[in-house]
Amino acid sequence: MTDHSEAESDYGQLAESVRRLIDVTIRTEAGATSVAAATANVDYAVERLSEVLMPGSFGVRPTVDGQPVASGNVLIGIRNPVAPPLTVHRNADGAVWTEVTLGAAYEGPPGHAHGGVCAMILDHVLGATAHQPGRPAYTGTLTLRYVRGTPLGPVRVEARVDRIDGVKTFAKGRIADNRGTTVEAEGVFITPVRAPQ
Amino acid sequence: MTDHSEAESDYGQLAESVRRLIDVTIRTEAGATSVAAATANVDYAVERLSEVLMPGSFGVRPTVDGQPVASGNVLIGIRNPVAPPLTVHRNADGAVWTEVTLGAAYEGPPGHAHGGVCAMILDHVLGATAHQPGRPAYTGTLTLRYVRGTPLGPVRVEARVDRIDGVKTFAKGRIADNRGTTVEAEGVFITPVRAPQ
Repeated sequence: MTDHSEAESDYGQLAESVRRLIDVTIRTEAGATSVAAATANVDYAVERLSEVLMPGSFGVRPTVDGQPVASGNVLIGIRNPVAPPLTVHRNADGAVWTEVTLGAAYEGPPGHAHGGVCAMILDHVLGATAHQPGRPAYTGTLTLRYVRGTPLGPVRVEARVDRIDGVKTFAKGRIADNRGTTVEAEGVFITPVRAPQ
Repeated sequence: MTDHSEAESDYGQLAESVRRLIDVTIRTEAGATSVAAATANVDYAVERLSEVLMPGSFGVRPTVDGQPVASGNVLIGIRNPVAPPLTVHRNADGAVWTEVTLGAAYEGPPGHAHGGVCAMILDHVLGATAHQPGRPAYTGTLTLRYVRGTPLGPVRVEARVDRIDGVKTFAKGRIADNRGTTVEAEGVFITPVRAPQ
């Protein structure tokens, strides 16, 4: 058996390098020679990594200790360079929160996070109030109220369960910077009933 | 004066290579030697591109012909590898639409787009009904109803103005695959009143 966790750590380190690459691809003002050299190096990396590719997408895979892991997830996946990645913390009372620094890759209005990025992150964090290991919850509805622009930089995202009604978890949350709330959200998340065994 | 459009084309080609790199970073099953070689090449590309970096983020910059361009935008920016990038088309009646193929980088539930990705794209496309060149509209509220999961693959996203009330544009839209609607959305977008000259 190969050392799965060691391989995952290599892949995670690669993803971390690609995150830096995304940032400088947007922000570079280097000249044509440097850009051409960088592009050639990226293309070579693509070639090496393509030697063996899984079909489709990453999905959810079991780790060596049997826990499901979503390493390709667009928000929490350590192998997905698009993901910050978020680390969602859970308090004893069931409230969840994360802190993340939004960089140039998430820009909409100049100097600000795209409203859609705020929606994407809130969907995930509100949903996390209903997620259980191996038993994900799916978004039913999500409503967002934009209080003001969310400047790029560090933000805190938090959510809590408002009430539970059968398979529906009603959650509320917000994004805030150091001046207070920028976006408020409410959502209903559905936990599918398990099929009888 | 340097040939700005030629430089932008080099940067766009680089971003296209980085998009392929993101995909294979998630999907690779190559061995440790190949992953290490790829990581070294990515790090070298980062170094070359970092020779000259703009501070902060890309923002909105004028092109040679004076049109504002948001090349760093997380949804439409040709220099942003996180962006598909979307090309939003506008019909004569003001309705807007785009077609995009969602790959492994946008995954949430296995084989499906993350609900937050659907929210992000709908925010942008609904907002596009209210955007005017050089005069962006900002999201006031956005409500999403998830009808069923959105499989990774090609989708069509469309939106239209429902009504306009002063600075507020009320828009409706949806994401659909070849089997029909997966997510419906309604939003209110605010066009700030210009300050008196």
